[in-house]
Amino acid sequence: MAQAVQASIGDSEFDRDTAVTLSQPGVYDAHLSAGWTIISAINGGYLLALIGRALADALAHPDPFTVSAHYLSASQAGPAIIRTETIRTGRTLSTGQASLIQHDENGAEVERIRVLATYGDLDQLSEEVRTSATPPVIPAYERCLSTSDGPVPDLGGSSEILERLDIRLDPATVGWVVGAPSGKGEMRGWFSLADGRPADPLSLLLTVDALPPTAFELGLKGWTPTVELTTHIRCRPAPGPLRVAITTRNLAGGFLEEDAEVWDSEDRLVAQSRQLAKASR
Amino acid sequence: MAQAVQASIGDSEFDRDTAVTLSQPGVYDAHLSAGWTIISAINGGYLLALIGRALADALAHPDPFTVSAHYLSASQAGPAIIRTETIRTGRTLSTGQASLIQHDENGAEVERIRVLATYGDLDQLSEEVRTSATPPVIPAYERCLSTSDGPVPDLGGSSEILERLDIRLDPATVGWVVGAPSGKGEMRGWFSLADGRPADPLSLLLTVDALPPTAFELGLKGWTPTVELTTHIRCRPAPGPLRVAITTRNLAGGFLEEDAEVWDSEDRLVAQSRQLAKASR
Repeated sequence: MAQAVQASIGDSEFDRDTAVTLSQPGVYDAHLSAGWTIISAINGGYLLALIGRALADALAHPDPFTVSAHYLSASQAGPAIIRTETIRTGRTLSTGQASLIQHDENGAEVERIRVLATYGDLDQLSEEVRTSATPPVIPAYERCLSTSDGPVPDLGGSSEILERLDIRLDPATVGWVVGAPSGKGEMRGWFSLADGRPADPLSLLLTVDALPPTAFELGLKGWTPTVELTTHIRCRPAPGPLRVAITTRNLAGGFLEEDAEVWDSEDRLVAQSRQLAKASR
Repeated sequence: MAQAVQASIGDSEFDRDTAVTLSQPGVYDAHLSAGWTIISAINGGYLLALIGRALADALAHPDPFTVSAHYLSASQAGPAIIRTETIRTGRTLSTGQASLIQHDENGAEVERIRVLATYGDLDQLSEEVRTSATPPVIPAYERCLSTSDGPVPDLGGSSEILERLDIRLDPATVGWVVGAPSGKGEMRGWFSLADGRPADPLSLLLTVDALPPTAFELGLKGWTPTVELTTHIRCRPAPGPLRVAITTRNLAGGFLEEDAEVWDSEDRLVAQSRQLAKASR
């Protein structure tokens, strides 16, 4: 997506909408933006990035290494607070906890998401790589499909997030758009923030939960709310578009897992995630 | 392993060693048994089962659906307490938190493991299965290798857990035993509790972390301490031995992931887990 001026880390819509302000020790004020809404729900990856920013401030280490989030209730656009706790501070790793909290119409606290996370410093890791993982095979960016190509399915509700993400889906995983899902639990595509803001560990927490659900390609039409999402950030991403591949192998008993992997422009596996989601309400 | 009398759920070494006693609302006393020690460390899966039992008592739903554990410090055999918090009680799912705590020589609390978990009722799930996952290919039980077959590598320290587990490893994944690791990040085998106690959702929390680390087959010799382990229990296991397959794809920067899947005798995928581990101290 051509942009007159490319946004940078620290000065972009993503950074403004995930900003947190320390209000008392370990407690942060935030504002959940409606700009990251998908089918009238605020995207769980955006919320995770916001919580991740608070923990990066609260903990002694800067980068999320592993973040486990259990989703409790649907967040609403508007004010929120993030309450953090430092559980352990070690030499190379720190572990903390965070709660994303909003207030209901009576002023009572309602917890939206509870997170456990272990942080470290990606710049301190060894350069050694002995991976057997290989990048997903995805057609070139210009041969993949954006949400403005072809028919757009009516997902119901507002989906402002689509204006903020530049996602190009592998044509092999978009059968659901025209009512012909592949039957395979796969979703693949290119991912960038639409304003050109480069990827970093915080934006990767959004990236792992940003593609359409694999359930659409399995022929399910309803939304698949996340019960729990755990993300490992393995490497600081290089500049350039990311490739994301999501796979579901086991849809059973009304639940499914979604395994995501994210690769950078230098063919490094920068993030792995798995979520447990409900197949239907 | 022939047993004169087969242990049953509720009356077995595993059940006795994971017993918890309510001491005050939400708080449980426990005793960490040295019987589940591997290379002088208490097995993380055993500890998770013990915490899982406390949460099963504290929460409104009986079965662990997804359990995220962050490991903070090395547990010691002896007394421990588990402090639980009920975060949310819903109609079909409940979410809670637990801390496994011991006391140091000065009587100060030291937290060993922090857990977030969402529980439900496996017996209430629909029967519908639309999985594309297939069971791992493992040779027949009698063609796999127990720890008493052939040379036993000197892992150092005591490993009493080996007497309590009946694990038979796929010969294709035991090259490390004779100093000839395959170089592939794979470990596969049959798993039962040695006293014949049948598998259930709590024992599955042990099963996902019970095989030798894949790192051994990658040629690493040191231990690989768990940073975080998340387990999804998808189905109540049928009687009979389980098959476990563990895979590591990405060993990079001094960390590796271990993906485990557990299959029951009726070819159902009963558990999936992923952990982030440190490749070396």
